Amino acid sequence: MNRFKILIEYDGFGYVGWQRQDNGNSIQGQIEKAIFKLSGENITLHGAGRTDAGVHAKGQVAHFELKKIFNEKNIRDGLNQHLKPQSIVILEAILVSENFHSRFSATQRIYEYCIINRRAPLTFEKNQYWGVFKELNIDKMILESKYFIGKNSLESFRSADCQSKTSIKTIDDIKIFQKGININIVVSAKSFLHSQVRIMVGTLVEIGKGKIKLSVKEIIKNENRSCAGVTAPPWGLYLKEIKF
Amino acid sequence: MNRFKILIEYDGFGYVGWQRQDNGNSIQGQIEKAIFKLSGENITLHGAGRTDAGVHAKGQVAHFELKKIFNEKNIRDGLNQHLKPQSIVILEAILVSENFHSRFSATQRIYEYCIINRRAPLTFEKNQYWGVFKELNIDKMILESKYFIGKNSLESFRSADCQSKTSIKTIDDIKIFQKGININIVVSAKSFLHSQVRIMVGTLVEIGKGKIKLSVKEIIKNENRSCAGVTAPPWGLYLKEIKF
Repeated sequence: MNRFKILIEYDGFGYVGWQRQDNGNSIQGQIEKAIFKLSGENITLHGAGRTDAGVHAKGQVAHFELKKIFNEKNIRDGLNQHLKPQSIVILEAILVSENFHSRFSATQRIYEYCIINRRAPLTFEKNQYWGVFKELNIDKMILESKYFIGKNSLESFRSADCQSKTSIKTIDDIKIFQKGININIVVSAKSFLHSQVRIMVGTLVEIGKGKIKLSVKEIIKNENRSCAGVTAPPWGLYLKEIKF
Repeated sequence: MNRFKILIEYDGFGYVGWQRQDNGNSIQGQIEKAIFKLSGENITLHGAGRTDAGVHAKGQVAHFELKKIFNEKNIRDGLNQHLKPQSIVILEAILVSENFHSRFSATQRIYEYCIINRRAPLTFEKNQYWGVFKELNIDKMILESKYFIGKNSLESFRSADCQSKTSIKTIDDIKIFQKGININIVVSAKSFLHSQVRIMVGTLVEIGKGKIKLSVKEIIKNENRSCAGVTAPPWGLYLKEIKF
């Protein structure tokens, strides 16, 4: 069998998310369909990260196996041809050893959340950034964000739908970049709880607005979802990079 | 009369362009409609640059006059309210003296053309950048672009529809920025011929591909549209800034 690793970019707007579903247009389903059109083989595509409905990716990684042999460039260009007019593209395809597994070999997942902080509604970035209209205290957000780093029970930062047995997660790093009206929050960890990044971002934004007075340190300690902020909208979130 | 200067951003995709037309959704027409809804006054909006169908703006400037007095922030927020769900927003509104004229007081117009140079089709930037799939020789493009600077007859770089009496224009500056797969071309001049920037960009891209062998210097000298390259698509072009 020939195992291929693919690097994927998608605008998640209008999709039900990464995971194939019986009803609904999923990223995984669309790529599996394109692989079938290209190769005639019915395969299962294994993704490194399960993005939710509306969440984007600039560096999703997945792998699949084919009986037939294909040139790497023909996989990339052929899949892109068959993926049209979806807003999903293959940036790269590489033949890998059978030891490589996009999900289990991943050592770190990096998500980026993109905010535009201004009064006017968004135009170009309407379904790609979160438009926050109230002024934010960025210095306070940066200061508070540091409490997320390390190993903690993140009970306050998981959605009611989260099926993980444990709420203990280790956040390797969180960085907040500000450039004019653009605020980007980058979070790195081996794995995440359901909606974790979006609740972290929603909480930091409400701290920046002065709406939440509690420190992130206390919100973590309380282990209570109601102490944290809103779940930030999916359209600002990007699966940026998977490290192996 | 109270004269207001407004700074406008719009995603031009799906519009017939800046200028009001009897049939068709124009930027000017939509803003005039919003001003009427806000003030009850029927005005004419004067823009600094006439952008074509599909062309975007991040810094269009226009002015209009009202009999009623409005606070600057209420003009901005009120128009944005009435402009929904258009992809047109007012970034700023300022009360100016009656000597200010958005078109005649402008001393420089700055356009930016945005290209993504990669094999995969575009996702997020589909109607906002020009996707160029063939590799480009950027060094050559930068070198050739310098011949545009100065006062020249740009007969080779105007569309058949151009109604300007003269083809003589002065380009103050042109800069090409490359950052990874992003190539941005910024052109500054007091005024432009019809489709001039798009033909300049199309020509530079064909030079970068090696498809056009002539130098920009010769193409200018020939004063013949057929020596220049294609007209680059409107969706990569942004009216970036107007200087007064």
